[in-house]
Amino acid sequence: MPITSADVALAHALADAAGDAIRPLFRADYGLEIKDDQSPVTQADRAAEAAMRRLLAAEAPRDGIIGEEEGTTEGSSGRQWVLDPIDGTRAFIAGRPIFGTLIALMDGGFPVLGIIDQPILKERWVGMAGRTTVFNGLPASTRRCRALSDALLATTSPALFADDELHAFEHLDAAVRSTVLGGDCYNYACLASGHLDIVVESQLKLHDFAALVPVVEGAGGVMCDWSGDPLHAGSAGDVIAAGDAARVEEILEALACRGH
Amino acid sequence: MPITSADVALAHALADAAGDAIRPLFRADYGLEIKDDQSPVTQADRAAEAAMRRLLAAEAPRDGIIGEEEGTTEGSSGRQWVLDPIDGTRAFIAGRPIFGTLIALMDGGFPVLGIIDQPILKERWVGMAGRTTVFNGLPASTRRCRALSDALLATTSPALFADDELHAFEHLDAAVRSTVLGGDCYNYACLASGHLDIVVESQLKLHDFAALVPVVEGAGGVMCDWSGDPLHAGSAGDVIAAGDAARVEEILEALACRGH
Repeated sequence: MPITSADVALAHALADAAGDAIRPLFRADYGLEIKDDQSPVTQADRAAEAAMRRLLAAEAPRDGIIGEEEGTTEGSSGRQWVLDPIDGTRAFIAGRPIFGTLIALMDGGFPVLGIIDQPILKERWVGMAGRTTVFNGLPASTRRCRALSDALLATTSPALFADDELHAFEHLDAAVRSTVLGGDCYNYACLASGHLDIVVESQLKLHDFAALVPVVEGAGGVMCDWSGDPLHAGSAGDVIAAGDAARVEEILEALACRGH
Repeated sequence: MPITSADVALAHALADAAGDAIRPLFRADYGLEIKDDQSPVTQADRAAEAAMRRLLAAEAPRDGIIGEEEGTTEGSSGRQWVLDPIDGTRAFIAGRPIFGTLIALMDGGFPVLGIIDQPILKERWVGMAGRTTVFNGLPASTRRCRALSDALLATTSPALFADDELHAFEHLDAAVRSTVLGGDCYNYACLASGHLDIVVESQLKLHDFAALVPVVEGAGGVMCDWSGDPLHAGSAGDVIAAGDAARVEEILEALACRGH
């Protein structure tokens, strides 16, 4: 089913609603709780997802919803909205305005529309299958990267890798010019705008990566898993984003030492 | 010599001048070079330091200058301005608006005035010995932290620690609730505003830490080295910032496994 202008308008409205819920709680009394997996969640996460779900119930009741905080709501349309109200909750808590709200529309198990929204800075990246990614209304594009040794690499935290993955990451880290840590989804947005060359992560959930794919690919980049396969609803959560498709083989080779 | 209102006005003017030099080059053609120590430097770093030095030559010709890019200019007043035009050059390059310009005034080898300025977001923290730190014109204060196990810890990158320091850091990391990576000087600013509890780093240069001390201490926090001693011009560069002074002993104990 093609993406309609109504879908795009709804995606923007979802991001607006999440931002309205999040902004008052940034650097304020955000109500921290620690989940069973030891990850933090705040009232801002919960309020933003609830606001998006209210809008979807009203505007797209036949679509399914997969949300970080409230789980899965089945639909009947074959489409799902995948919601991560705050990707980078630790950054949000720490007062850094580089977390993001992630919104994806999945069709047939593949993300066809994605938004990365930074509500404090009012920065929004919108990607759609087959169209050019837009950053605050203007076209965004990744940059060329002539060699792996020129690349700027980002990952949120090496502590998020399993042991064999960490070994693989260190191999890639040693091959690039420079690495920045932290950043969560904002790294993929910066890659889509041509400021970073590579982002590598693992153990991501569908709500962490679905929205990133249309944003990065619509800007001229590539997203795949650590085997080079496309990302979809069943992917394991090991993720590569490359601004320049010509570097993907070398990234895969550097990571292939995984488990050795 | 007490800090005068002219000193404060000059410090603000330095931050303004640096910001004017940096803003046009953020997410633009910033002219990357790699220094002998493999750290990156850009035209934004160079232009911002040059702009601050021009102002100091005109307004405070008797004061010395210690700058990251152009080194030391001797003075005759017994005071030095310590300048880091962009702390977090990798973050600047990556398109993250959480790098900072650091400006300190040292008297008798101790920092008595410090500014952390984020020129893209127009956020400025100003600290002075014996006065309350100000964030964009309003008082800033650190928060209480009842136990190390409640603490939110930040450090820019574990890769910046020497081996024995990394071991010590991992000990502290295991004792706190949560850790965020990346952030550079912005972590200390967020601590001064009560969003983070602890920042621990090592291998910092004087220009990396001098400005942080008045900002953190004027907000109610403590800064010291990993032995608990105050930071001054001759400090080795291992740094602790704690928002709640009551946690400093436990932080020192956790780090004391260094070398063991």
